[in-house]
Amino acid sequence: MVVVASLRLPSLTSLFSASSRSSHRAPAALFRRRHSCRRQPFLAAAKFSAQSAASSPPETTEELAVNQKKSSKTNQDRVITPRSQDFNAWYLDVIANAELADYGPVRGTMVIRPYGYAIWEAIQDYLNVKFKETGHSNMYFPQFIPYSFIEKEASHVEGFSPELAVVTIGGGKELEEKLVVRPTSETIVNHMFTQWIHSYRDLPLLINQWANVTRWEMRTKPFVRTLEFLWQEGHTAHATPEEAEEEAMKMIDVYTKFAYEEAAIPVVVGRKSREETFAGAVRTYTIEAMMGDRKALQAGTSHNLGQNFSRAFDTQFMDENGQRQHIWQTSWAVSTRFVGGIIMTHGDDAGLMLPPKLAPVQVVIVPIWKKDDEKVGVLNAASSVKEVLHSAGVKVKLDDSDTRTPGWKFNFWEMKGVPIRIEIGPRDVASGSVVISRRDVPGKQGKVFGISMEPSTLVGYVKDKLDEIQASLLAKATSFRDSNIVDVSSYDELKEAISQGKWARGPWSASDEDEARVKEETGATIRCFPFEQPAGTKTCLMTGQPAEEIAIFAKSY
Amino acid sequence: MVVVASLRLPSLTSLFSASSRSSHRAPAALFRRRHSCRRQPFLAAAKFSAQSAASSPPETTEELAVNQKKSSKTNQDRVITPRSQDFNAWYLDVIANAELADYGPVRGTMVIRPYGYAIWEAIQDYLNVKFKETGHSNMYFPQFIPYSFIEKEASHVEGFSPELAVVTIGGGKELEEKLVVRPTSETIVNHMFTQWIHSYRDLPLLINQWANVTRWEMRTKPFVRTLEFLWQEGHTAHATPEEAEEEAMKMIDVYTKFAYEEAAIPVVVGRKSREETFAGAVRTYTIEAMMGDRKALQAGTSHNLGQNFSRAFDTQFMDENGQRQHIWQTSWAVSTRFVGGIIMTHGDDAGLMLPPKLAPVQVVIVPIWKKDDEKVGVLNAASSVKEVLHSAGVKVKLDDSDTRTPGWKFNFWEMKGVPIRIEIGPRDVASGSVVISRRDVPGKQGKVFGISMEPSTLVGYVKDKLDEIQASLLAKATSFRDSNIVDVSSYDELKEAISQGKWARGPWSASDEDEARVKEETGATIRCFPFEQPAGTKTCLMTGQPAEEIAIFAKSY
Repeated sequence: MVVVASLRLPSLTSLFSASSRSSHRAPAALFRRRHSCRRQPFLAAAKFSAQSAASSPPETTEELAVNQKKSSKTNQDRVITPRSQDFNAWYLDVIANAELADYGPVRGTMVIRPYGYAIWEAIQDYLNVKFKETGHSNMYFPQFIPYSFIEKEASHVEGFSPELAVVTIGGGKELEEKLVVRPTSETIVNHMFTQWIHSYRDLPLLINQWANVTRWEMRTKPFVRTLEFLWQEGHTAHATPEEAEEEAMKMIDVYTKFAYEEAAIPVVVGRKSREETFAGAVRTYTIEAMMGDRKALQAGTSHNLGQNFSRAFDTQFMDENGQRQHIWQTSWAVSTRFVGGIIMTHGDDAGLMLPPKLAPVQVVIVPIWKKDDEKVGVLNAASSVKEVLHSAGVKVKLDDSDTRTPGWKFNFWEMKGVPIRIEIGPRDVASGSVVISRRDVPGKQGKVFGISMEPSTLVGYVKDKLDEIQASLLAKATSFRDSNIVDVSSYDELKEAISQGKWARGPWSASDEDEARVKEETGATIRCFPFEQPAGTKTCLMTGQPAEEIAIFAKSY
Repeated sequence: MVVVASLRLPSLTSLFSASSRSSHRAPAALFRRRHSCRRQPFLAAAKFSAQSAASSPPETTEELAVNQKKSSKTNQDRVITPRSQDFNAWYLDVIANAELADYGPVRGTMVIRPYGYAIWEAIQDYLNVKFKETGHSNMYFPQFIPYSFIEKEASHVEGFSPELAVVTIGGGKELEEKLVVRPTSETIVNHMFTQWIHSYRDLPLLINQWANVTRWEMRTKPFVRTLEFLWQEGHTAHATPEEAEEEAMKMIDVYTKFAYEEAAIPVVVGRKSREETFAGAVRTYTIEAMMGDRKALQAGTSHNLGQNFSRAFDTQFMDENGQRQHIWQTSWAVSTRFVGGIIMTHGDDAGLMLPPKLAPVQVVIVPIWKKDDEKVGVLNAASSVKEVLHSAGVKVKLDDSDTRTPGWKFNFWEMKGVPIRIEIGPRDVASGSVVISRRDVPGKQGKVFGISMEPSTLVGYVKDKLDEIQASLLAKATSFRDSNIVDVSSYDELKEAISQGKWARGPWSASDEDEARVKEETGATIRCFPFEQPAGTKTCLMTGQPAEEIAIFAKSY
């Protein structure tokens, strides 16, 4: 297998640049430059428009062309910035090169490309089943919400009004009442619940919708924060506060299991501080994930809304005693942001690393031949291996193009984060075996020779390996997380931990003002009061007063 | 089984009105009244707003209450207007009573309720697989499109500009360039294609997105025409006009098969006239369905876009000879309108009638007992029948509530269009058998006694019956369609056929002006030039000149 080893030599750079084919040479600089522009908050609306259609498209095209020309001629740049060198640049390079997403023509919008969308589809497939198993039905609410609805719940309007996109013209006419493009649907949901819910027999009402939402964000970042994004939003109505609380907890638990078991992300689950609670909620539960740069990503939230919206919209029901009561509600959401979380949790210098359970391609087969008379035998063997795996339910791709070298393909599919690569050369065909490489274990250590092509052996081996990789990604992320959470007992220790880029965990019973001061002085916020709490008495790290709970502070996306 | 027979006596009216439970007494008058308002085109934008949040919700709530009060007290109205009496009122009553949809707070918007959404999910599940089998990948484009994009393709802007919803405010600031909420995505797709496509090796590019779209329609009707609707839109790019044509034909074929095999709707497939071609397309293919009132519903379209958009957006590729060429494109779509087509094709006076392949509930089990000591045995048997069918992949529901009589349940689930009802009473339990009723065959003729509960017998019987019902709905709709298409050879005959409410089919080679005159004088338009054409020479029904093709004229939604 010397052939194979030597074929692994070309670096990503030379591979990307030596080629004459353009479709895989995505514009790495594209995301980077634009994003760095957006690091300064925009000063005026005029600035947004200047960045939208009128000016951007030519720039984009030009830059793309420049970038391609440069890489194909000079052969100098690494296309993917090393992660350790510039995490943000790495992130944007991975998204561009792996063709996960691209910028839309309007500032802050994102086009989700097929490979990125396939990850979202895998997320949807899992959650959709779980939502139905827990009794929820899908439905669809209109995205246009009368402006007056948003104003009905006091903290809701305060939270969302700065971020609204507003339709003022319809069918060529100025509208009398402006319409908000939904930033979230609590208000319109309550408007409808008020018509549908009359008696305790109508409760609980458990629904979910898969939809797009719009928030006019100042600083955007692909997947993590975009002007428009895709999500699911669950909305439920209950007869008692206990049932609403139970529902909110049940759904954050669904999200937690999803994060651990499917995305291999060891989230910390807990309750948000008052300051960080959803605009309109009584309590917000959250799953917080540690990214590769140790910043926290809020990856999913579940809100106990209490009666805040039902009072604002007068959503009442007749209880079993014939008394009218306001309903108790929850809402909960996970969005395309989760895709960003997956990239930033598992990726490395070579690019994306996808957990097998969510990978659009779990196994890529790279056939290897030098002489023409070897080609047919190798491709036949590769096709039959593909068929065997496909029939066994493995998501498998055979890269049989002959315009690329095997070495190029190795690097390309590593960059795309495919968990397992199968190599098949003439000697493998002769011996009836294949070579299997793990994406998560670089070099020779991750490579096993002589795995039999015999279907039951191969399928068993591949499936075991996929499970192993899934578990290994979780273990690695967990160990990374645990080694980067510091227990602190004073504000000085907290500041020290944050300045080292870590998460600080310590007892907290101080005021909202103190919380704001921490944010002001360190850039960190309370990510959550984790459900997992140490026993014993605790002393607030800030005030020295008794504290009921520990909180986790971190910088976040 | 005398008990069962007598239980079928109560009419829908008395059943709905006698009850004290409100959730199933949907406001039948709600859709009706509002719709009749909308029959007059709106005169000014002010009118829209007057119908939106500010005024509608109180009316809605009040009317709902009035309707409920009336029906529960006076017991006079039939809740569902007979189809033969007023097709439109029947349609709106079915949607309200079967809880398929409800009005949103903004004029012309619709909330798709779980039962209606489940039909859409079944449509999605089928088409999504077919799209992937034919090589298409899902992705997602932003819904905000710079206004300038819409203006680039001349006929596109002419077609869509009157229907646009426009965002002018974002993040509290007036935008410099207005943003259109997508009415369709050809423009933004081409903007991105221009960045992604460089060489013939990048072609074909075959993508699809599931999304919401907005068209500011004047006259709306739930499912059929709403301000916002859900759809899929396929967009493809090709290196040759032949490939684009082949793709457009392939996808209209996917839609045709879907209509026949899943929805049991015998659509007529054909080409649109120039007048009715999509704004920006070279050719539009369509599937046209005949509704129960014999009006035509355009149920899906596939467009050969030629180079219209690629020229407008300068989307070029380098061909195999090193020449730059504009790409050749298609787009194709099916929307939530299809749900309206299913309702209006198969429904009858009793309500909805769903084709088994798309029914959210294929079998409902109604347990029947009179004495308390019978209850446990009946419910146990019903549960085990449910389990048996569920395990066999049948979508089954057990209605074991004890607040409703069996007769009420029979009518309710008939109204919801469930294809098969299984009744289980004490005598059935004793004999180990069940009673099975078909939704599509009313009364005793559709009822079979003594079907064994033995799992393999029961499952086999039910599955056969579902297939039979599926085929029977298609046969019935086909015979209805065929008996309502009249071959005409003169304009007088055409007018006569249209005035009888039928479709007129005849040779046509007249001008666009003549086509406009037919519309003006009869209200009918050319629905399509059907693919299925008679042999032999033909003479244009209007001009007496030779004609290449026959066309089908009909009034339409």
